[in-house]
Amino acid sequence: MSEDMDADADAEALEPVPADEELETVAELAKRRGFFFPASRAYGGVAGFYTYGPEGAALKRNVEDAWRDLFVTQEGHMEISAPDVMPEPVFEASGHLDGFDDMIIECPECGTNHRADHLVEDATRIEEAESLPIPEVEALIAEYDLDCTVCGEPLTDVPVEEFNLMFETNIGPGSSKPGYLRPETAQGIFVEFPQLKQYARNQLPFGVAQVGTAWRNEISPRRALVRVREFTQAELEHFVDPDEDEPPLHRVADVELTLYPADEQEADDGEYVTCTVQEAVDENIVASDWVAYYLGLSQDWYERVGVDMDRFRYRQHLSGELAHYAADCWDAEAELGGDWVEITGFAYRSDYDLSKHGAHSDEDFTLFKQYDEPKTVERATVDPDMSVLGPEFGGDAGAVQEALNDLVARDPDAFDGESVAVEVDGETYEVDVEDANFAREEVTESGEHITPHVVEPSFGIGRIVYTVLTHAYDRDLVDGEERAFLDLPPEVAPTTVGVFPLMDKDGLGERAREVEADLRQAGFAVAYDDSGNIGRRYRRQDEVGTPYCVTVDYESLEDDTVTVRERDSTEQARVDIEELPVTLTALRTGSTDISEL
Amino acid sequence: MSEDMDADADAEALEPVPADEELETVAELAKRRGFFFPASRAYGGVAGFYTYGPEGAALKRNVEDAWRDLFVTQEGHMEISAPDVMPEPVFEASGHLDGFDDMIIECPECGTNHRADHLVEDATRIEEAESLPIPEVEALIAEYDLDCTVCGEPLTDVPVEEFNLMFETNIGPGSSKPGYLRPETAQGIFVEFPQLKQYARNQLPFGVAQVGTAWRNEISPRRALVRVREFTQAELEHFVDPDEDEPPLHRVADVELTLYPADEQEADDGEYVTCTVQEAVDENIVASDWVAYYLGLSQDWYERVGVDMDRFRYRQHLSGELAHYAADCWDAEAELGGDWVEITGFAYRSDYDLSKHGAHSDEDFTLFKQYDEPKTVERATVDPDMSVLGPEFGGDAGAVQEALNDLVARDPDAFDGESVAVEVDGETYEVDVEDANFAREEVTESGEHITPHVVEPSFGIGRIVYTVLTHAYDRDLVDGEERAFLDLPPEVAPTTVGVFPLMDKDGLGERAREVEADLRQAGFAVAYDDSGNIGRRYRRQDEVGTPYCVTVDYESLEDDTVTVRERDSTEQARVDIEELPVTLTALRTGSTDISEL
Repeated sequence: MSEDMDADADAEALEPVPADEELETVAELAKRRGFFFPASRAYGGVAGFYTYGPEGAALKRNVEDAWRDLFVTQEGHMEISAPDVMPEPVFEASGHLDGFDDMIIECPECGTNHRADHLVEDATRIEEAESLPIPEVEALIAEYDLDCTVCGEPLTDVPVEEFNLMFETNIGPGSSKPGYLRPETAQGIFVEFPQLKQYARNQLPFGVAQVGTAWRNEISPRRALVRVREFTQAELEHFVDPDEDEPPLHRVADVELTLYPADEQEADDGEYVTCTVQEAVDENIVASDWVAYYLGLSQDWYERVGVDMDRFRYRQHLSGELAHYAADCWDAEAELGGDWVEITGFAYRSDYDLSKHGAHSDEDFTLFKQYDEPKTVERATVDPDMSVLGPEFGGDAGAVQEALNDLVARDPDAFDGESVAVEVDGETYEVDVEDANFAREEVTESGEHITPHVVEPSFGIGRIVYTVLTHAYDRDLVDGEERAFLDLPPEVAPTTVGVFPLMDKDGLGERAREVEADLRQAGFAVAYDDSGNIGRRYRRQDEVGTPYCVTVDYESLEDDTVTVRERDSTEQARVDIEELPVTLTALRTGSTDISEL
Repeated sequence: MSEDMDADADAEALEPVPADEELETVAELAKRRGFFFPASRAYGGVAGFYTYGPEGAALKRNVEDAWRDLFVTQEGHMEISAPDVMPEPVFEASGHLDGFDDMIIECPECGTNHRADHLVEDATRIEEAESLPIPEVEALIAEYDLDCTVCGEPLTDVPVEEFNLMFETNIGPGSSKPGYLRPETAQGIFVEFPQLKQYARNQLPFGVAQVGTAWRNEISPRRALVRVREFTQAELEHFVDPDEDEPPLHRVADVELTLYPADEQEADDGEYVTCTVQEAVDENIVASDWVAYYLGLSQDWYERVGVDMDRFRYRQHLSGELAHYAADCWDAEAELGGDWVEITGFAYRSDYDLSKHGAHSDEDFTLFKQYDEPKTVERATVDPDMSVLGPEFGGDAGAVQEALNDLVARDPDAFDGESVAVEVDGETYEVDVEDANFAREEVTESGEHITPHVVEPSFGIGRIVYTVLTHAYDRDLVDGEERAFLDLPPEVAPTTVGVFPLMDKDGLGERAREVEADLRQAGFAVAYDDSGNIGRRYRRQDEVGTPYCVTVDYESLEDDTVTVRERDSTEQARVDIEELPVTLTALRTGSTDISEL
């Protein structure tokens, strides 16, 4: 073994990067080495848009594949791909057109738009100003004498307004068909439910996943990949029968969770609760069994993709924070540079979305649920005699008829007397029960139409990539020299193996190129590097998290072996070239260790 | 073996579906079985937007992965992921803001917007009306007395206008920052070139790929996945030094191509030319070696993902068709329902895009190309004496100075006389060469800045998925009964293996669920089905192209074996349950055949 190659014999731990330098260090690395960087910089850039470079795109794709492996393949759910641009009626129904707003305040002097709630949060100790009503935010701005952070103009008495966060566009020529970039991938699933239920053969429970882009026209994008305008979501909408379906809780019952319940957040000396999924359910810390199941299932997944579980927690939403559709909601949060960032939302959305789409469209967003055996039920009906009602109520007769129909469905007992009263537009009409043709009949029903409930784990892929990258960043001393490296799990590392010729002469380059081609052929993500000394090439790969490097040296030409070197330990082993694909696969999947070779 | 399971012993070919029924048959299957269907149908749908159902999303992803395997992994290129929404200056530079238009004609009676060139094409024998100038299209509409196809109103004398095909939106509050949904993924690569060249360590050639969404606000979307408003592209931008870099043509020299050159298209009795890549280059049928390389490389890939090569050709663009940036362009075309559809464009884009971005921005879109050894060159300079030019030319002195600087770079010999003439705003100014301080000097240069050229294979993933699905659709007779099946290559089939219990009793269901779980664990895409008789379950999987089905029967409970059945041949073999992952992988990769088991 050459002296050069022996350079990595020992690695010694170093103090981690201080929290206040961490994100800057990662941003510098991310840009220099091709993880991510602000997009379109040649034209001054646009806040909130990032380009993933070669390393970042690969890391992101690997994280998505790991998500798909668990939430689609292992769990046996469907995955679809719906359009990014959707027509207006979808968002009228979903509530986004009316309710998906942020509070905006425009400086009257310099014209800068600020998020009013962020101004309040930054200047006070209030944490969730987003959930406050506008007048209260205006009052706080006045109370604290807040100024424009750009030009210093006072903002007291400047109106705070609502700004819809959807990107709007027009479909086709003219402006008659507005469309929106979807603010969450979920709506692409909900709106297709009438079709999707057929693929599930009308049987609950079933899950539909989607990994795709979503957009929010943030007023003030910030914190790199945390608050961006275009991002990738991996969402699973699990449709369940709330009366019958139970999650397979036993599979995750023993998983240990770090929970931060709402009451602990509100307490003065609030603490995390550490308990198993089963305990969280038994002690009602997590109200929904389905949500608890997904907290447990996801926990191992975060670890698998490289989230540091010492910098991770599940936090329950406070009541003011809950989205318009959510009955109970927990966030997975990761600590980044000293702040906690939501990386996944777990929501019990109940029947909110399907009901809304059912009410706004003519399609059937319910499922027919067959009873185990037919049930005989009493059903009350009316059949108002319009030849009586017409003359009696004139133009209101139709409305009275409708009101009677509604009433009999809601409260059949109201027809027990001789007459019945209904209200139409504030006026009360008295109708003889006889004229309403009220009747009770026994009917046999084989089932009923139900609107499924929805459990939704919603993963922010960009934030997870950012977390994984940040948590993977590490430094140590190798033979007295500091090195920076990413201890990414091999499954998500952008490059699996670096291939180096010791020198680019005497046929070493050609042999190394053959090794490279063989590994590519075997499906490995390979980086070839023949520039600089071996130690420097190791550092380059360490810095992007490549778990293994292979060096072709003079010995290789004689006995067809190469040196394989492992990133974290810097340990090395000699391996037959023809065994490389098998050995690297074994190392990658953890079925062997470099020290065992 | 049970009688039930023996049902598939023999398959007999049937006539293919007639061309005029093919697309309708595929559309029905696509919707019913979850490949694709018109999106947001609950709200009446929006033309040109499709949702990929579970089968289609998987097929599409598998096609993308196969593309990535060849064009990124095997070829050793980078892949990035840039934003979908980009700011206006990008498209000012790229030419899309001014030039990316279709011809629109609005019916004055009913308000329907038509593509004027399509009206002409549909009513005449003209094929590429898109490339005609507007007045000519207006003249053709008058000449043929064309009417609105919706209400019948005559369209003669109705103006034809240009309609920009980009979807526009606003970034942030207000309308001060327009953004556009990218009309091609390519611009996301070009605009980041200053950063990307650093990842390539400033060495040509290098390639950057992107698989992502692009949008065109089509006036009249049509033909299912062919002309849509939102689609997926897989593009590779290969940056090369036009003076030095050569493609590795030898790797594909012997690949046989079916070519349809421009002159054959224009000839009365034009024919396809069948020749190897090497012959196409030698005989100058394909002008660019780089384009020829990619035609050869892609040919095998189409076959790999399931394009029927008897329904495939490479067609050269006619001169009128060439995009604003393209020097030579060939399309891969597939025949679908009797029509030829472009599925990939191969363009030599020269330095068009990088030059444009270089000119429109302040970033450096060139690469410094080091000479093998430094060159000594003569360089001519001027240093105009402004104390003379100022008084002489007044306010124009600055412009004269600039004109002199331009001239010396362009034509140093112009300074050989006593005076030199430059033109500024149409006026000629005479300057003494002495006052210009003209000089020639010898300088040594180690290299020069060059703008790389770009070779671009641009794959339309949706169209390829549509082609693969259509070409895979087949029917035969199995034991006298007609069956429909998709003979998809196992690599791209949405589901790799169907798992069935012979019956859902006596523990067969439980054992089959175990087999299912093991196969999922091993990473296979599995469909579990326990409903209906086995023959019917086979048909269900045949119809979505699942290559293998595994049946758990009573024998399985005794000896831990199952029946594996192959889709196209309907042949069956008995396999140990614990060997299943290995056997299915061998079948999938073609290293063994069902008849050898």
